[in-house]
This record gives sequence, structure tokens and C-alpha cells, in this order.
Amino acid sequence: MTATAPPYPAVPPLPAAGMPPGPSDLAARFTASALAADSGVTPNKDFDAWFAEHRRANRFEVTRIPFGDLVGWRFRAEDGNLVHDSGGFFSVTGLQVTTDRPGPGGWSQPILDQPEIGVLGILVKEFDGVLHCLMQAKMEPGNPDTVQLSPTVQATRSNYTGLHGGRRTDFLDYFLAPGRRVLVDSLQSEQGSWFLAKRNRNVVVEVTEEVPEHENYRWLTIGQIHRLLARDNVVNMDTRTVLACVPFDAPGPGAPARQPGTPDAYRAALRRSVSGRGTALYGTGQLLGRITEAKARHTFHRRTLPLVAVPGWRRTETEIAHQEGKHFTVIAADVRADTREVTRWTQPLLAPVERGVVAFLARNVDGVLHLLAHAKTEAGLLDACELAPTVQCLPVNYRGREQPRYLDVVLAAPPEAVRFDTVLAEEGGRFHHADNRYMIVEVGDEVPLADDPDYHWMTVRQLMELVQHSRYVNVQARSLLASLHTTW
Amino acid sequence: MTATAPPYPAVPPLPAAGMPPGPSDLAARFTASALAADSGVTPNKDFDAWFAEHRRANRFEVTRIPFGDLVGWRFRAEDGNLVHDSGGFFSVTGLQVTTDRPGPGGWSQPILDQPEIGVLGILVKEFDGVLHCLMQAKMEPGNPDTVQLSPTVQATRSNYTGLHGGRRTDFLDYFLAPGRRVLVDSLQSEQGSWFLAKRNRNVVVEVTEEVPEHENYRWLTIGQIHRLLARDNVVNMDTRTVLACVPFDAPGPGAPARQPGTPDAYRAALRRSVSGRGTALYGTGQLLGRITEAKARHTFHRRTLPLVAVPGWRRTETEIAHQEGKHFTVIAADVRADTREVTRWTQPLLAPVERGVVAFLARNVDGVLHLLAHAKTEAGLLDACELAPTVQCLPVNYRGREQPRYLDVVLAAPPEAVRFDTVLAEEGGRFHHADNRYMIVEVGDEVPLADDPDYHWMTVRQLMELVQHSRYVNVQARSLLASLHTTW
Repeated sequence: MTATAPPYPAVPPLPAAGMPPGPSDLAARFTASALAADSGVTPNKDFDAWFAEHRRANRFEVTRIPFGDLVGWRFRAEDGNLVHDSGGFFSVTGLQVTTDRPGPGGWSQPILDQPEIGVLGILVKEFDGVLHCLMQAKMEPGNPDTVQLSPTVQATRSNYTGLHGGRRTDFLDYFLAPGRRVLVDSLQSEQGSWFLAKRNRNVVVEVTEEVPEHENYRWLTIGQIHRLLARDNVVNMDTRTVLACVPFDAPGPGAPARQPGTPDAYRAALRRSVSGRGTALYGTGQLLGRITEAKARHTFHRRTLPLVAVPGWRRTETEIAHQEGKHFTVIAADVRADTREVTRWTQPLLAPVERGVVAFLARNVDGVLHLLAHAKTEAGLLDACELAPTVQCLPVNYRGREQPRYLDVVLAAPPEAVRFDTVLAEEGGRFHHADNRYMIVEVGDEVPLADDPDYHWMTVRQLMELVQHSRYVNVQARSLLASLHTTW
Repeated sequence: MTATAPPYPAVPPLPAAGMPPGPSDLAARFTASALAADSGVTPNKDFDAWFAEHRRANRFEVTRIPFGDLVGWRFRAEDGNLVHDSGGFFSVTGLQVTTDRPGPGGWSQPILDQPEIGVLGILVKEFDGVLHCLMQAKMEPGNPDTVQLSPTVQATRSNYTGLHGGRRTDFLDYFLAPGRRVLVDSLQSEQGSWFLAKRNRNVVVEVTEEVPEHENYRWLTIGQIHRLLARDNVVNMDTRTVLACVPFDAPGPGAPARQPGTPDAYRAALRRSVSGRGTALYGTGQLLGRITEAKARHTFHRRTLPLVAVPGWRRTETEIAHQEGKHFTVIAADVRADTREVTRWTQPLLAPVERGVVAFLARNVDGVLHLLAHAKTEAGLLDACELAPTVQCLPVNYRGREQPRYLDVVLAAPPEAVRFDTVLAEEGGRFHHADNRYMIVEVGDEVPLADDPDYHWMTVRQLMELVQHSRYVNVQARSLLASLHTTW
């Protein structure tokens, strides 16, 4: 190993808090589904036609309107927060962060407050011995391409308690039935810069019985979803985060390359990284200690503020915006659609001011692929700090300031080092055209192995272990973890 | 297995998110220390004499005073919160909880707000090949017996940034030095009913160099600490929670029984439960799913209130108390001591109204000991719900209401079924005479294996796995986990 020495001394690893190396029955079944690149149940060409037809047929108009034209929403007199008359859905409030971290030192911002636990659920069923996922062609008002491929169920608590007066979410009962067969069920955070302490259950439930057919739903293998994940703006965020919580083994060395031209050395290193059979730079106990250290090194306090009291932001009749044009705006939209639970509605949406860059640097360390995770502070995360990709930013926010670490490495990467490069959007039910360029970039020893206590090299297996627990891996890192499995 | 069927269907286990079965180097070293019941470094009889002398010699007076006599503390005009003039230490504020859980449905209460991460650290060093812990005879104003056995370091952030103007905490630098050799480092919660989102780093650091001698400190093996843990009010809470984060193997079958009369079947079942070699009733993936389910089943919201606005509580010149005499009071104390960082001070303390009962039910399931953990909601926990012991309550709080589940089983347990029964106090720096009767009670099939989704049978190994992460195991359960290792 030619790397520079890490700043932390070598310490004896704790007993690994993680999955034992080697396959499990469940991981083997998911892996078999990931290796099935096509399926007789819904052949890829049939899917493509069906999906194109859904995108074409859905007359779906999203129009920006003044806040005053929102129906059921208002700026509350006492604090200027944007709230729904029912007290449900979500609200836009202010948040003040105080920290002794170097840099800005503290800030205030608007933030979406939705203190509920929703369900993101994929129903799976075996056909011909291979697990298939019941996937939905679902429109969301903020999606850049209207309809995206979504889990079987995306339900906020408001949704499934019927707060919005629409019809009951299809297939939801499979995820609530007492006798259900649960394969995955974990609470995971969502965008910490935009949501205050938001999280959802990421659930996979298996059925063996007949499931009613539905025009908006198709059964796909995970391999088929992986094929779509390499296309811009097809697979939605909710699908990605649920898939990130699924355990996989590495495919055998004989498995065909997903993308022609991927170097064999990368594929072999990825295989060892996923299988857990290679040696990780840090034992999992050490990694947990490094994460503790990252959380504890600085103070972090936050408190909600009245939205009207957030400095540096201004409200007009049509938007709430940062006075330097950074971060995001909050806008109001009128939405008309045919296939959503109710046919027409208005709602606020959060619109980032530009496309972001979200990237993992990956490096082959003694034959095992390691990803560089950033212990990143985000205002709304329940515990302030989770593992994020190496780079996660809107470049405009750093105009006139020091650029985020490694952004230059990502943007200057030669094409032959780029293992994944797809534009993917964040959740279209709350965010308007919030797409990011998601990348996985392989680097060599020009990027040293460790020189910053906020950045941590880890294997894919370790990331898969941590994502079994809440609040370790942020939603952008989970999107990339799901995407990584397409780069075999 | 003669148990009644659990209400959850058998599902394929996820790949275990846990320690692989079998010893690790680190666990082996800690286990060897736990098996060392005496030591030439500090023989038990020398320790006993030294500790008794410390208790005798420490002239230490704690006097209740009116709030008006507190120095540096005041009830803030705007909200009635009890605060320190520096803005540091902690404050007493109000908290309102809203939940759709059956039972009270919601409540308001005073709570201690101390939004900092402190350090609870034990320094360890090998003598004659056996790890010894540098333990402190430390007075805390709220301790029932003045001086208790404490970790090497207990430091709030205020402590080590010198906010209180006292001298620097002894040995603290060992826990902050960049080159330190960290064996354990995890963030753990503290009393969720009394603290708002409080947590501390639980740290074990190993040194090999000479450590200066200090009259208030002695080196002890973990076996020697275990001997003291069976005595009422000797080992303090901070020691217990750090020890709970330490990995252990099971002792060999030939290891002598700690307590004469302990049935061999119990010891064998405990051995298999600690080693992870026996079969757990639920796979760890299933357990994680059950915990997710317990967290998500009900809504839980909280917000801080001005202390003056908490209904059902009244403030007099000398205390803040519940109007029915339940829960706790907040009092003011004048403290005079010789050996603490500063010689005299005044401070508020939280005083529970009576001694609590904290107990794990344990049951031998097919040769493997299982503990019954309660997914318990506590107002101040960062995520509302952590795994608690089977029973954790002040009985007076249930006067005139339905008793907590399993309290009757614990209180009626025959002596031959009681594996641990010691009075232990919570942290004496914040709590006044807050002692609990800690018990481990072995039960048979009169307690069914599963019939309530808020109660979860798990092996000791599984609990040890979960405690490596934050926010799974509450501080009372960690005290019992540490104590369990004394029942071999």
C-alpha cells in the first residue's frame, strides 16, 4: 500500500459490528434478482413501451402561482410560517443553527417541517424463482420528467390516514397487514438541508399470493431497475433509497460486465468490497469511533425560528428566496393530473437554484474498492451529521468562497475514470426539478487515503452494514450506494 | 421449545448486523480482565480500606436551600426557566409531548436541558498482561453515599472548556490527545425522562506509558469492579454505562461461579447467550425491523415550553413539584466539598420522589438466555424510543392506574430466581438520591415468549451488538447489561 499514513494510529479493531462475510439466503435472493437483466414477466422492451406511453399519456401540468392562489395553505399570522389549514402535510418554518465548526459558524434558513414517519415500500414476489419488485409509473409534481419509476407505495402518514381526502393508496395494506413477511424495514433520513428531522420507513415485503394487476404497476427484477438507473431521471429517489437498504452479495467473477469497458481490476475490487472478504482500511469498530469523533468534535445547536425572522431571505408574492440567489427558493404550484390520488391541487415546492453535484470518490486499496464518505453536517438531520458522498453541493453556494473539498477532482475526472454518471432527481412530491448529477469516480493514489477526520474511507460492505441502522448514511449516499450495484 | 408462538410470522433473517460469533482479540482481553477477581496492583483488601477511608475523610455537606439562595442561577423572567448566568451547564425547561400512544396520550413536564456531548472515559493499561481500569473515588453531590467508584474522567463540555472556573479535569488529556489508542468510543443517551436529548461519549483509551499516581485513583481489573457492582451504591452510573459498551466473550465452562448457588443451567445459558453461539429467537435483522415498527407505530411530537407554562406542576421557594407528588422534584442544594474541582458551589438537582424498580426478565430459551427488552418511549430521548429493561418505573407514578407490565412478576420473584439485586444510583452530579433497585430475574414458561410488539426477547450478544451503536439501548438497560456480567 503506497498511501500516506492515516492520521489515526492503528488500533485493534473492535469486534466488527456488521454482517458476517459471505452470502446469506436473503442477500443471495436479492443478488439473483440483480443479475437478472431481463425478465419474461415484463420484458425490457415491453416495459420501455409501457413507460413511454405513461409519460406521454399523463397530461400533467404544473404551473407556478402566487402564494395567494394556494388553496388550503396560508402564511400564519403569528410567525409567517407557511402552513396547511389542516395542520397536516408539512409546513415551511425557519431554523437557526449555531455551531463552532470552522467556516460559516452558524446560519439560519427556511426548512420543510414534516414530523411524521411515512412508508416507502416495495412489494416483492418470486416469479420463476426470481424476486420481482412491483414498480409504479408515478407522477410527482416536481419531477423533471413528470413520471418516474417509484416503489409500490409512497405514503406519508397523512396519505394513509386519509387526511387529504383522496382515495386510499394502492397496495398500502400489504405493508400494514399484521401477518406480512418483512425482508427489510429501517428508518432512514431524508434531505437534511431541506427537511427538519424527516424520515421514512424503507420497507420490502414479500408476498406469495396473487396480487391484483394494475395499469400503473409492473413487476421488474432488480437487474431491470439497475438498467433504468443508468438513465437520467427515470428511477425516483424513493426507489433508490429502498434499494440501498437491500443486502447484496457480490456477483461471481464470471458475471458479465454491466458496462463494456469497465476495467477488470475495478470489477474485482468492487466484488471484494461488496463481499466483505477483502480487508478494510479501518475495522468497523474503528469506523464507528471515527463517526463518534466527527459528531462530538464540534457543538451543534438548532432551534426553530418564525419564518419571517430568518435573516438573509426575502419573501415576495411568488417565492421565498435567498438574497444572494443561493440554496433554493420556495414556490407555489398549481398541479393538474389525472392519475394521482386527487385530480387537482395546489402546494408549495422547494426548488434548488441549480443542479447539484453528488459524487463518491472510489479507490482500489490493496484490491478492495473503498469509497470516501464525508461526515457532513446538515441543519435538519436528527443527529446533525451523517455519512454523505465525498462531494454533495450546489456549486453556486460556494461562489466567492472556498470550494468544497474534492469538487475539483470530480469535475476534472477523465471519462475513463467515471464509473457512474447520471442525473437523478430528489423526491418530486416536495422538490421542484431538484436534480443532481450523481457520479462515482475512480481515483488512484493522487488522492491520499486519509488526511481529514471528517472523511472516511470504507468498503461497500461497511456502508451496507451501516445502512441497516438509522441515521448513518444520508439519502444522497444511499442513492449512490444503490447506483454502485449497476457498475459491475 | 414449548413457548407460545410469537405474533410475528417467522421470516427469513436478514444478514445479521452484528458481531461475528466467537472471540476477538479485544473481547478476549476484556474478558481476561473480567475473570481477574483480584489483582496484585490494588488488592481487594487494600482497595476496600482505601475506599472506606475516602468515604470517611470526605467532609461533604449537601444542604437544601431555597432557590433564592442559588449563586449564579436564576429563574429567567421571560419563561421561568431555571438557568445559569453563564448560559452554560444546564437549564430546567418545560417539555410538551403529544402522541397517539394509548394511555396518557400526551403530557408536559419539566426537563433538564444540557445540549452538549460530554466524555465518560476509562483509561486502561496492562499490568502483568491483564487490563486494569484507572478508577476514581469521586464525590458527587447527589450520591446517596457521597463517594462512588467513577470512571477516570467524567467531563461535560463545560468542564473541559473551563466554564466553571475550576481546575482542569485530571487525566482528561489522555482522552483528547490525537495519538490516543481508542478501544471503545460511542455516543450513548442518558435518562430520557429527565434529560432532553442528553448524551455522552463512552470511551475506553489504552495507555502503555507510565501514568502519574493520584491519591483519588486506583487501578482495578474489571473483575474487581464486578465484585463492587454487586454492592449497593458503590459503582456509579458513569462506570456502568462505559462498561456496558465493552465487548466480552463468555467465560469458559470451567470458570468458577461468581455467586455460589447459581444454577448451572443458568450459567450455561448465559454463556451461550454472550458467545453468540446459540440460536436467537429473532435474527438481528428481524429485531431491527421490530424496533423500527415500535418507533413508527405511533406519532410522537415534542416541543419545549416555558417552565412556567407546564400544567400540573407547581413551584415554591424550595422546589418544583408535581401536584400529585409523582415523578420528581427539582430542588436547590448548597454543596461543600474538599476534593471536587471547586470547593463550594450551589446547584439545582433533580430528585425522584421514591426509589425505582429497574429489572430485566431473563429466560432460558432452548439453552440460550434471552432478556426481555421494552421498546420504551421517554420524553427526552433523541428518537423518543430506545430499548429499556423489562420494567423501569417509579411505582408511585402508577398509583390509581394500571401497573406497568411485568412489575408484579419482578416483585413476586422467589429469591432463588433472582440473579442480580442491587441498589444503584443514577448520576450524582444532576440527580439527588436517585437510586433504583436493579434486578435480573430468571423466569420460565409462565412468561410467554412473545405477545406484545413493544417487548422483544433478545440474547445478550444481540444487546452487546446494538450498544455499539447510538440510541438503541437506554442507560438503565446498559446498567443491567454491565451488571449481568457479574452473574456468571
